[in-house]
Amino acid sequence: MREVREELPRNGARICLVPTMGALHQGHLSLVDMAKRTSDLVVMSIYVNPTQFGRGEDFGKYPRTLESDARLASERGVDFIFAPADTEMYPEEHLAFVEVEKVSSILEGEFRPTHFKGVTTVVAKLFNIVEPHVAVFGQKDAQQAFIIKKMVRDLNFDVEIIVAPIVREKDGLAMSSRNVYLSPEEREKAAVLYSSLKYAESSLASGKKNLRDIRAEMTEMIAGGSGGKIDYVSFVNPASFEKVEDAGSLDEVLALLAVRFGQTRLIDNMMLKVK
Amino acid sequence: MREVREELPRNGARICLVPTMGALHQGHLSLVDMAKRTSDLVVMSIYVNPTQFGRGEDFGKYPRTLESDARLASERGVDFIFAPADTEMYPEEHLAFVEVEKVSSILEGEFRPTHFKGVTTVVAKLFNIVEPHVAVFGQKDAQQAFIIKKMVRDLNFDVEIIVAPIVREKDGLAMSSRNVYLSPEEREKAAVLYSSLKYAESSLASGKKNLRDIRAEMTEMIAGGSGGKIDYVSFVNPASFEKVEDAGSLDEVLALLAVRFGQTRLIDNMMLKVK
Repeated sequence: MREVREELPRNGARICLVPTMGALHQGHLSLVDMAKRTSDLVVMSIYVNPTQFGRGEDFGKYPRTLESDARLASERGVDFIFAPADTEMYPEEHLAFVEVEKVSSILEGEFRPTHFKGVTTVVAKLFNIVEPHVAVFGQKDAQQAFIIKKMVRDLNFDVEIIVAPIVREKDGLAMSSRNVYLSPEEREKAAVLYSSLKYAESSLASGKKNLRDIRAEMTEMIAGGSGGKIDYVSFVNPASFEKVEDAGSLDEVLALLAVRFGQTRLIDNMMLKVK
Repeated sequence: MREVREELPRNGARICLVPTMGALHQGHLSLVDMAKRTSDLVVMSIYVNPTQFGRGEDFGKYPRTLESDARLASERGVDFIFAPADTEMYPEEHLAFVEVEKVSSILEGEFRPTHFKGVTTVVAKLFNIVEPHVAVFGQKDAQQAFIIKKMVRDLNFDVEIIVAPIVREKDGLAMSSRNVYLSPEEREKAAVLYSSLKYAESSLASGKKNLRDIRAEMTEMIAGGSGGKIDYVSFVNPASFEKVEDAGSLDEVLALLAVRFGQTRLIDNMMLKVK
């Protein structure tokens, strides 16, 4: 990758990185479309990063489909795929980590305590290896996108971060590589994540401000009918990622949730306008 | 700095960064000489970084002599000085940190628990701002140099690290911006740091291997006559920075010490050949 990269700047081409863990779906491919609109050359990294998985998480069974990923990426216009081995990314005892404090320990960080430390570390590594001008992340992982933007600002990475919208299935389920884990029955019930977010959206649009009440209704919708087990349903100020209980004077709140169906843990979120 | 940096690569010039906290002495200027031997352009950063000082340390009184520093640096051949304000380096609540685990918590890290976290964070920032090909650090801060090299490897910074030898006063005292804090009497007694290291050097050269015995003698030399208060006298394997108590099968050991004279804390080290 370094050798390829060293050839590139001579053209003065603008280079965009799309970091992924592979198992590509239409959500990832929409990131490629976004990348192509902003840049001359698109590098996609495909790497299932061990340091962002906790013990007992799905690192071992995470889908690895490099051949079909490469075909899909190439058809969509990716110029280079960087798919390193673990021995290339972590060749010796790894001791240097990048961490974004506070915001990494709430929401996803509460349930996956070492997750964001692994994410920021591998993204810093990818930025240093690929040296992109731009990088595209998905809004599906809203907290991750917020943390990456904060890392870039605080550590002065010379990379522009673009966050691309969530791509959804017909029934509203956010596209995710983990959706393949769902049984047909779970898959059907998982649509409740989207409908609960849409419920919150319409509640705020109708003038409700008390987010505790809205959360209680969402919780009822999810836990009641679907059998989904809720890790969290939360609302944050999108500018600070601080939790809010009342929409009060905000123009927008970001609703986020994490729900388990059997062994499968799904996350979703939606930006909600406050009336 | 970014604007300057963006003009530079077009020449294809090799750029070297010399990170300093100012209060320049001959040690710093020897880093500049080293930089000029390896590179076409030398950028010196002068920044007293608050995040690497602990509570109760000398951040407030650390000598700040930017005008004379700029003159000295320029006379020695520095091309650009980057002397940012705190409000430029830490413009908002700073949450992203780079840490090198394990080796940051021993020796200096034991006495200055947050020190290396501040160092690695600001060096990562400087690397991202200046984007040098090479950076020169002083062997005087041997543990820092080891940690920076580990950070560069683990996080894939595309920067070559050069470590330049310690520059000493006539009586052997390692040059340090903190030497100005010493009273004339303390200044005279501080030469014992060097003589204790020379004692260790000759002990190992004469075939002694038991580092506990050598340390006991060094401790006696320092604490006995000079009134210096020892934080540590330690020996590490220079390849791993792991503490060693017996020179055993090693070719070299690195002796490191930290001693306080009044309010002034001095460090020094020496690479010792094992017979």
